[in-house]
Amino acid sequence: MNRFSAGGSFGITVFGESHGEMIGVVVDGVPAGIPLSEFDFEKDLARRRSGAAGTTPRTESDTPHLVSGIYNGHTTGAPLAIVFYNSNTRSGDYEGLQNTPRPSHADRVAGVKFGGWNDPRGGGHFSGRLTLTLVAAGVIAKKIIGDNVKFNTRISQIGTETDSTKFDAVIAAALADGDSVGGRVECSVSGVPTGIGEPFFDSLESVASHLLFSIPAVKGVSFGAGFDVVNRRGIENNDLIINTEGTTETNNDGGINGGISNGNPICVSVAFKPTASISKKQEFIHLDSGEREIKSIKGRHDACIALRGAVVVESVMAITLASLGLKA
Amino acid sequence: MNRFSAGGSFGITVFGESHGEMIGVVVDGVPAGIPLSEFDFEKDLARRRSGAAGTTPRTESDTPHLVSGIYNGHTTGAPLAIVFYNSNTRSGDYEGLQNTPRPSHADRVAGVKFGGWNDPRGGGHFSGRLTLTLVAAGVIAKKIIGDNVKFNTRISQIGTETDSTKFDAVIAAALADGDSVGGRVECSVSGVPTGIGEPFFDSLESVASHLLFSIPAVKGVSFGAGFDVVNRRGIENNDLIINTEGTTETNNDGGINGGISNGNPICVSVAFKPTASISKKQEFIHLDSGEREIKSIKGRHDACIALRGAVVVESVMAITLASLGLKA
Amino acid sequence: MNRFSAGGSFGITVFGESHGEMIGVVVDGVPAGIPLSEFDFEKDLARRRSGAAGTTPRTESDTPHLVSGIYNGHTTGAPLAIVFYNSNTRSGDYEGLQNTPRPSHADRVAGVKFGGWNDPRGGGHFSGRLTLTLVAAGVIAKKIIGDNVKFNTRISQIGTETDSTKFDAVIAAALADGDSVGGRVECSVSGVPTGIGEPFFDSLESVASHLLFSIPAVKGVSFGAGFDVVNRRGIENNDLIINTEGTTETNNDGGINGGISNGNPICVSVAFKPTASISKKQEFIHLDSGEREIKSIKGRHDACIALRGAVVVESVMAITLASLGLKA
Amino acid sequence: MNRFSAGGSFGITVFGESHGEMIGVVVDGVPAGIPLSEFDFEKDLARRRSGAAGTTPRTESDTPHLVSGIYNGHTTGAPLAIVFYNSNTRSGDYEGLQNTPRPSHADRVAGVKFGGWNDPRGGGHFSGRLTLTLVAAGVIAKKIIGDNVKFNTRISQIGTETDSTKFDAVIAAALADGDSVGGRVECSVSGVPTGIGEPFFDSLESVASHLLFSIPAVKGVSFGAGFDVVNRRGIENNDLIINTEGTTETNNDGGINGGISNGNPICVSVAFKPTASISKKQEFIHLDSGEREIKSIKGRHDACIALRGAVVVESVMAITLASLGLKA
Repeated sequence: MNRFSAGGSFGITVFGESHGEMIGVVVDGVPAGIPLSEFDFEKDLARRRSGAAGTTPRTESDTPHLVSGIYNGHTTGAPLAIVFYNSNTRSGDYEGLQNTPRPSHADRVAGVKFGGWNDPRGGGHFSGRLTLTLVAAGVIAKKIIGDNVKFNTRISQIGTETDSTKFDAVIAAALADGDSVGGRVECSVSGVPTGIGEPFFDSLESVASHLLFSIPAVKGVSFGAGFDVVNRRGIENNDLIINTEGTTETNNDGGINGGISNGNPICVSVAFKPTASISKKQEFIHLDSGEREIKSIKGRHDACIALRGAVVVESVMAITLASLGLKA
Repeated sequence: MNRFSAGGSFGITVFGESHGEMIGVVVDGVPAGIPLSEFDFEKDLARRRSGAAGTTPRTESDTPHLVSGIYNGHTTGAPLAIVFYNSNTRSGDYEGLQNTPRPSHADRVAGVKFGGWNDPRGGGHFSGRLTLTLVAAGVIAKKIIGDNVKFNTRISQIGTETDSTKFDAVIAAALADGDSVGGRVECSVSGVPTGIGEPFFDSLESVASHLLFSIPAVKGVSFGAGFDVVNRRGIENNDLIINTEGTTETNNDGGINGGISNGNPICVSVAFKPTASISKKQEFIHLDSGEREIKSIKGRHDACIALRGAVVVESVMAITLASLGLKA
Repeated sequence: MNRFSAGGSFGITVFGESHGEMIGVVVDGVPAGIPLSEFDFEKDLARRRSGAAGTTPRTESDTPHLVSGIYNGHTTGAPLAIVFYNSNTRSGDYEGLQNTPRPSHADRVAGVKFGGWNDPRGGGHFSGRLTLTLVAAGVIAKKIIGDNVKFNTRISQIGTETDSTKFDAVIAAALADGDSVGGRVECSVSGVPTGIGEPFFDSLESVASHLLFSIPAVKGVSFGAGFDVVNRRGIENNDLIINTEGTTETNNDGGINGGISNGNPICVSVAFKPTASISKKQEFIHLDSGEREIKSIKGRHDACIALRGAVVVESVMAITLASLGLKA
Repeated sequence: MNRFSAGGSFGITVFGESHGEMIGVVVDGVPAGIPLSEFDFEKDLARRRSGAAGTTPRTESDTPHLVSGIYNGHTTGAPLAIVFYNSNTRSGDYEGLQNTPRPSHADRVAGVKFGGWNDPRGGGHFSGRLTLTLVAAGVIAKKIIGDNVKFNTRISQIGTETDSTKFDAVIAAALADGDSVGGRVECSVSGVPTGIGEPFFDSLESVASHLLFSIPAVKGVSFGAGFDVVNRRGIENNDLIINTEGTTETNNDGGINGGISNGNPICVSVAFKPTASISKKQEFIHLDSGEREIKSIKGRHDACIALRGAVVVESVMAITLASLGLKA
């Protein structure tokens, strides 16, 4: 499905391909009367935009067009559609992907699943460019959940490096090698009241992870102490409640018990794999002949997709909260 | 929502509480004509059953009753309802949870969310007992996806120990201290053809993680190399395709590209936190007075919930595949 | 799907067969703290119960069992499951339906759709007995939408007769012939505020008709002036607004504009066909041989299913309103 | 919700307003490899187009733009988005609707529901212009269900007239009076195999009526003999099966038993009310003052919306069948 909803009124529907005419998102369940303009998207879109070291030099057309659901500068209660026109595409870079699929890319699975009819240009519908629509939907979601909810999002690790002052060097080294590098994004969300999320299938973790794993290149999601909980005893890991508001001494549960927010910051950690597209030579197989070939992937690539992924993670957390009914 | 569906015909709806009359699951979208009897559930239910060291000594009533959707020993195509009657419950153990909520439990959030009307006995609807319904649904899902799909599920770590021959000792030590310990479950699923899963919101990772995080005590989910991808360069992490069937040299992507199975084993890793209920003394707060008290949690507890969680993880992976349309 | 939801938190999932162990409904999205007991169901279940002239003399087991979602006499916020045990079933009456399907029944389509694996006893999952679950869910829905909403439900026509004082005679005449007769149910719902329903796919008419046409034997649904609107000019049919609260002079629109309630009574009219099961001799075909046979359908049948259908229509209207978010 | 799906992979999401930049539909679950071009839409769009007597003289911009999900002239398996740019709009005609809502229009309910923030221009999101998206989605649906499925759609009645040779005169008379007139559309769908539809909540009638009642101005929907079943005895109404393929002697059930197609033509009848917008003078109320005023509605109006509704009904029946899984 290209629609996500957690069973409440808020839902998003995405469409588009990297090299098609436009990509877009339809956001449903937006309350009427929220002030909104294209300017509101600028800050988060800029965080995702290319240009920084480690991100692709392609200048994307990332101006949002609000084509429905808005009137006199306010949301109307009708579905809000936001589109982004594509431009500056160089289709020629992506020829031949169907027969010599790129390692760790969707090229081959898309070809098999769709019988060869998929649009291969720039990854088609699988392109990371579609995360633009998640950021746009996240801006709407943030308006709905309100300013009391604060996001603290950061890159906590790139490669084996956890000192942020050295991230540029790690990326530069990867770029110099025509290679890429993985990264980890941490997002802490404060100001969420107790009670958001449902037991079982709409647990806060379930909804958040569902959306997070829809972001290309994400391979791990954890909350609170995450995989460290495995190493621990209960007495170490339990979060003691220290006051009648439910504040806890530690936050190993990442602000969530039984799938429901407990009023403490919601903490999520997300692992992004190194960009699969690298200039470094790799071995490819020709699906028609079985022949092998060693070659580079041409085109413009991000060295560390986590850099641009950070704001996408944050956007998705906002969508999660709006989907679960949080309102300002 | 108490229903999960990935947008296809297969869906599950769960209900019940730890100390109510019965718990159950309604499984929708089951093809007609599948041979099925209550005997088919025995193997997986036994894997979840209590009794082993580290699991609660409570003898649960875990006999499945197939109350609809079955006729002459075969599925009929109508919704399949499976119920488990509760018995051997000792409600008295759980008095007072509303005012002195257990650390890292759902007691407080449930009380707040449901205005104090929630059933507190044994965790009510939040109880791990409801995972019985996931295992039962998993048995149906396995029948649908067929015998070619093989599950290899194991505990890979308990506490800091990764040598399975020493797990008993780790658990015994925790039990001796009135404490609990975390665990990690790995599940590898082979025999899944290329093409299962959808780009974006029904990616295989999205659907699997949605269900996995609905299992109580799960705090992390990763696929393939998981969080290790952060440390890597692209050239290390990329999975080279070595034949025309799409077999890869390595499986860092855990059998999934672009959200879609690539024909290699699907590998998932799940972190279970140490059981929050421990006998060891902890500090509690009285929500009415703000007073603090140091006490033990009475009752019967699993020392390592991951032990019983392993088959639940496997069941959930089967449900994921059936939900995404895999059929024998 | 055996689940219905209009995209909000309220949803219902039904299961069961006429001659299985039990039938049931799981109601999701019920607010916590609503007083509820099995006694609350008695009035509406009695309206549906057999025994009146024109209804089957079979004494059904229609005692509701609230098996989850209730604690201390109040809803808990967890899914509410209600089951009805089956009894007094005479399976022998229904042998041979697979080969000589009854005219205007689901026997043949069920056999084809489910490859002959469907439960044929008493219509199996297609049985009108499952409307018991709709009435039970309607009782919950009425509690949610509150006492300000009043239902005025009546049989307006049986056969060609519209004078209710003569309905008994019409039914007695049909019974005397071993035949059945159609009926029309009108339901007017007052006290619904302006604003319930959504433009397009969750219009009040869409949601109501979706549920109404799930009731066996319903072949027509209309709102307000219904099919009479065809005969009219706009100037006759338009409902003039006569005060600032939106009261209209006439109610040809049946209380709904643009899919949304306008504050005037919501008026729906539902056509029930004559019961397809009749004692009168009819021609049957043997599907294996193509041979024809003239025979009676044995068993106990309602002469006018609309009689019992009236409370089902009302229940479904309550479910519609709860599904669209109306709360007391 | 602005999305419709019957629980299978096919789904549609609509957006847009009469006087916004564009309206559109995202169609999900379209199989890959279907030949498709903008030319394929021409025939059905022309049937809906304005210009005939009784339809508004406004020349709408109804050229479809396929902006995603298509590559090299074939569907790709990715979501298919189709947009229509708006043009030739005269916003000035619709000023003041918020305070003096038109009788039998959505003006007042939209204002109340959305707190006055709705886009009132041309009915905004409630505009009949959005049926363009249903026709476009219907074209896709027809491609999916294949050429064996044949639609026979006609206007069977306009006003009290059932002789189609006299329809023009009926409409001309209404136009001459500045008035409008109702109409009835009959659609018969042949070539649908036995087995499409589900018991209860996804009955063929439920899904079809859900969509049909989302079409503006529809007030009644019936199948087969429709409301005439009320007048009948069972022996008259039952459809005898006359051969082993399931052909029936009569088709009072409209090709559907137990919610499932029985192989006979599916027959639906739809009542459209007279266009609510008429030039004839009517009394309006000023919501701010309670003052009454007699005036005409300015602007260009269809005299008989059923004329353009016919192809919309047919499109919606195609969407119904695709939603329920029918494939060529």
